[in-house]
Amino acid sequence: MQKHVVIIGAVALGPKAAARFKRLEPDSRVTMIDREKLISYGGCGIPYFVSGDVSDAVELQKTAFHMVRDVEFFRATKGVDVRTETEAVAIDRAAKTVTVRHLPTGREETLTYDKLVLATGSTPSALPVPGAQLGGIHAVNGLDAAQRIRALVSGGKVSRAVVVGAGFIGLELAVALADMWGVETTVVEFRDQILPGVIGGNLARMAQKHMEEKGVVFRLGEQVRTFANADGGIDEGQVARVVTDKAELEADLVIVAIGVRPNSGLARGAGLDVSERGGIKVDDQLRTSDPDIYAGGDCVELKHLITGGVAYLPLGSLANRQGRVIGTNLAGGASTFAGAVGSWCVKLFDLSAAGTGLTLAAAKAAGFDALNVHVSQLDRAHFYPDKGLMSLELVVERKSGRVLGMQGLAVMGDALVGKVDVVAALLHSSPTVEDLSGLEMAYSPPFAAALDILNVLGNATENILSGRNKGIQVDEFAKLWAGRTAQEPYILDCREHANVEELLQKHPGHWHNIPQGQLRERLAEIPRDTGVVLVCNTGARSYEAFITLAHAGFGDVVSVEGGMTAVLAAGVEV
Amino acid sequence: MQKHVVIIGAVALGPKAAARFKRLEPDSRVTMIDREKLISYGGCGIPYFVSGDVSDAVELQKTAFHMVRDVEFFRATKGVDVRTETEAVAIDRAAKTVTVRHLPTGREETLTYDKLVLATGSTPSALPVPGAQLGGIHAVNGLDAAQRIRALVSGGKVSRAVVVGAGFIGLELAVALADMWGVETTVVEFRDQILPGVIGGNLARMAQKHMEEKGVVFRLGEQVRTFANADGGIDEGQVARVVTDKAELEADLVIVAIGVRPNSGLARGAGLDVSERGGIKVDDQLRTSDPDIYAGGDCVELKHLITGGVAYLPLGSLANRQGRVIGTNLAGGASTFAGAVGSWCVKLFDLSAAGTGLTLAAAKAAGFDALNVHVSQLDRAHFYPDKGLMSLELVVERKSGRVLGMQGLAVMGDALVGKVDVVAALLHSSPTVEDLSGLEMAYSPPFAAALDILNVLGNATENILSGRNKGIQVDEFAKLWAGRTAQEPYILDCREHANVEELLQKHPGHWHNIPQGQLRERLAEIPRDTGVVLVCNTGARSYEAFITLAHAGFGDVVSVEGGMTAVLAAGVEV
Repeated sequence: MQKHVVIIGAVALGPKAAARFKRLEPDSRVTMIDREKLISYGGCGIPYFVSGDVSDAVELQKTAFHMVRDVEFFRATKGVDVRTETEAVAIDRAAKTVTVRHLPTGREETLTYDKLVLATGSTPSALPVPGAQLGGIHAVNGLDAAQRIRALVSGGKVSRAVVVGAGFIGLELAVALADMWGVETTVVEFRDQILPGVIGGNLARMAQKHMEEKGVVFRLGEQVRTFANADGGIDEGQVARVVTDKAELEADLVIVAIGVRPNSGLARGAGLDVSERGGIKVDDQLRTSDPDIYAGGDCVELKHLITGGVAYLPLGSLANRQGRVIGTNLAGGASTFAGAVGSWCVKLFDLSAAGTGLTLAAAKAAGFDALNVHVSQLDRAHFYPDKGLMSLELVVERKSGRVLGMQGLAVMGDALVGKVDVVAALLHSSPTVEDLSGLEMAYSPPFAAALDILNVLGNATENILSGRNKGIQVDEFAKLWAGRTAQEPYILDCREHANVEELLQKHPGHWHNIPQGQLRERLAEIPRDTGVVLVCNTGARSYEAFITLAHAGFGDVVSVEGGMTAVLAAGVEV
Repeated sequence: MQKHVVIIGAVALGPKAAARFKRLEPDSRVTMIDREKLISYGGCGIPYFVSGDVSDAVELQKTAFHMVRDVEFFRATKGVDVRTETEAVAIDRAAKTVTVRHLPTGREETLTYDKLVLATGSTPSALPVPGAQLGGIHAVNGLDAAQRIRALVSGGKVSRAVVVGAGFIGLELAVALADMWGVETTVVEFRDQILPGVIGGNLARMAQKHMEEKGVVFRLGEQVRTFANADGGIDEGQVARVVTDKAELEADLVIVAIGVRPNSGLARGAGLDVSERGGIKVDDQLRTSDPDIYAGGDCVELKHLITGGVAYLPLGSLANRQGRVIGTNLAGGASTFAGAVGSWCVKLFDLSAAGTGLTLAAAKAAGFDALNVHVSQLDRAHFYPDKGLMSLELVVERKSGRVLGMQGLAVMGDALVGKVDVVAALLHSSPTVEDLSGLEMAYSPPFAAALDILNVLGNATENILSGRNKGIQVDEFAKLWAGRTAQEPYILDCREHANVEELLQKHPGHWHNIPQGQLRERLAEIPRDTGVVLVCNTGARSYEAFITLAHAGFGDVVSVEGGMTAVLAAGVEV
């Protein structure tokens, strides 16, 4: 049964669905259209093209075997007809036709379809402020925009840049500008942390500190009000100044990366179900409300597998997998895409960040009685020479011990992503803390610690949930430290004396030291009428100390999760 | 209720169980004994101490915060009494006592216990051949042996070494000797591949080739018959020659690493259940046949979670996790250790190998109707500059598509271990190929490909299982190539012409080329009366070509999994 499948959109999902379908039904016909000239490029690679890591934009369009994925490539190797610079204008679902317009000529044509695929993607949100249309203000919107930005920076035309938005793309662009081109880069973010919504505040502060050490300036909790040219005008010319609610920043390049909106106008126009937030609604076979029309990628809304609610996750990895599902189903299959938990990773200079599932804030917002537990340790056998610190934060439901998410930072990025991927894989089947403790991870000194950090994280969380340890995290420690009085809190550092000497001299009367090994014999030195805050290097010895104090009847004791390692990494001044 | 717990063995599991128990029951008493002077060291680090990566043996005995885990450390920080150079001689289960002997003095003493833990570990198997007791022949048997080996090589006393056994420890030692000390190193292995039992033959050949390029010589399928001194004697003096069934090898150092045996004599003497292979039998709470006696680590036999049979897996990572389970249960808990699937990783110069679950051979031996599927691809977005090849082999049950195991090789070791860990985590709940295809992995160009290699592996396997592709692997290709005639097989390389030119000139009439994009138009060139072997760079285009040929009615067609990348990596000469 020969079909004609029309696919609207030829980046990521569209080509994947087309190729899969043609492999299953070589006799059927596929027409894929796209508004742009360049198709099927790796959009996630744009920051690496801007940075110069990827020398030529055409690399983003190549296959692993160095062929350019252009119209001829799809015709010859996949048997798919592609029309570029062609826009879908309207869908007539009753007639099963799509009206398309060839943009250079304006010529319109009607294509009939048996099955239709909407792979229309997303558009960067604009900043609705005066001056937003000035020259030098760019959204990261496809390869063309990327080439314009790259041309500016590589031409030496940019000495000061402002990036608006501290999400993935904003930060990747900030790294590209500051690292490779030496541009003075300031990131302005409306919310009070970087990577808002995807990582907790303590990890965000650690990542921010690392980027600051590399020269990026952050202005958090700050809102852009106006863009202005050199004369203060907002109507024409080049941007020269970014005016926020708190400051005026000079800039000869502005990148706006405050998120993306699903391109669902065509779907809405055709009467398909579209959510209030704008995502096309699909079922678990990725069918829209019209069973002959599929949709996937950045233009759809998904089921969040942890909250059970909806999620908008414009991620290339999801689009690629959805493409295969749609391709299978176009050929009469019943492949499913149940939803997502939201896994991500990003490289920020020498530090990598990654996560999966819910942050603590997201878990609470979704109605979970949740808490988070922080662990920092080396991601290698500690005696192995080449190693780095890894910090993980687990988000769990208090009563059930159900794992809801995990986020982390590490110098060894691949190792971090490996841990996140393990948890992501488990998250599809409601794991508990006990499942983490029992994980069977591969071990050898060059790769991990004998007790894997995921096992440690599970154990540490179990200790907290069962009340055997009571942890506070960096932000709480910072508050206690900032509000300290002569009496309170009693900060007890349980590292060896040599590690603590400097702090003891700097903060006499505030910082105390009893090495954990001497604690049992020196309990009398510790006041019983005030709170005790235990700290060590990473939290392992302060946990042992916590048990000793709890056993000796001390009531109001807490241990700093991640220890001084986390405190210093977050830039808390002590 | 104060208890006295006696723990026999103070490396890995013993200390872990002791510390956990003391945290749960600070008032109870723990006595831990060990035959050696040095305790609680990271035994898996020995190859890295021999290599010099770890400068001093004491580093292997330190905590992450640089304290040496000696008798005083356990007393002060853990509240555990340790007696070193003390051997357990006998257990009287009725009286609940252990007779111990202080080795330097020979003084014996009887300890009473409420609960007993056997953490007696394993002993390297000896090679029962003449001359095995000559000087210069070492087993990797604890820190003392490691120090002797290191002293020899660092003292310039070794120019030629023979390692007997190509398992983890043998290969790690071969790397240590060849890489860091420039020793001419030959590995002799009785079986016909390196890493026998843990990885398939094709991956083994690729890893072997890498090690050969680094200077290590392999003699596989070869058996040591005698060790001899310079005069040919076998009774005294230093080893100078290793005589195998095929050759005589000069050597001034021999390392025997042919596996380990569980130390279960004490348990057997006490009448506890011990298997024929020598492992102490334990239940899922790690209790022996006497409920007051626990055992774990290298001295026990475990349940294999895939075969349902028994497994002997002497791995430090398992021992550490078991230690916590035992510690919990000593305190009245009911923590379980259900068994293992067997996850491992090893660094071989610049290449890493890792795996989990069953190899194809192990799966077949366990009665599964299994097959394996090979995928090779870059472990990054292909446009990202810093990337490397990753090769994975999935072992699945044919009918159900159940995943039974996965093994792999990669330059980026952390990334490989991450993939293996994901599958290891899933293996605890009988995943299918579909679960791999649906895995939600974190993606960003510096870390992975947009369609993760695990997704690709799941998809490729699904294509094979459903008959949409028919793969052969490197070993089968090598056989076909070696046995080629003027007519058969018809090798069709479907890469672009420029990539194939050299092979076409080298093998006229044997090697043919039609780029995949031209295949549909050039079907007439392909003979229909002979088998066709499709090959490309990694197997992606030959899969497309397979579909085209199958659709055109060609019957006897196969596609080489992993393509020329795998063929060349395995050292097949074409």
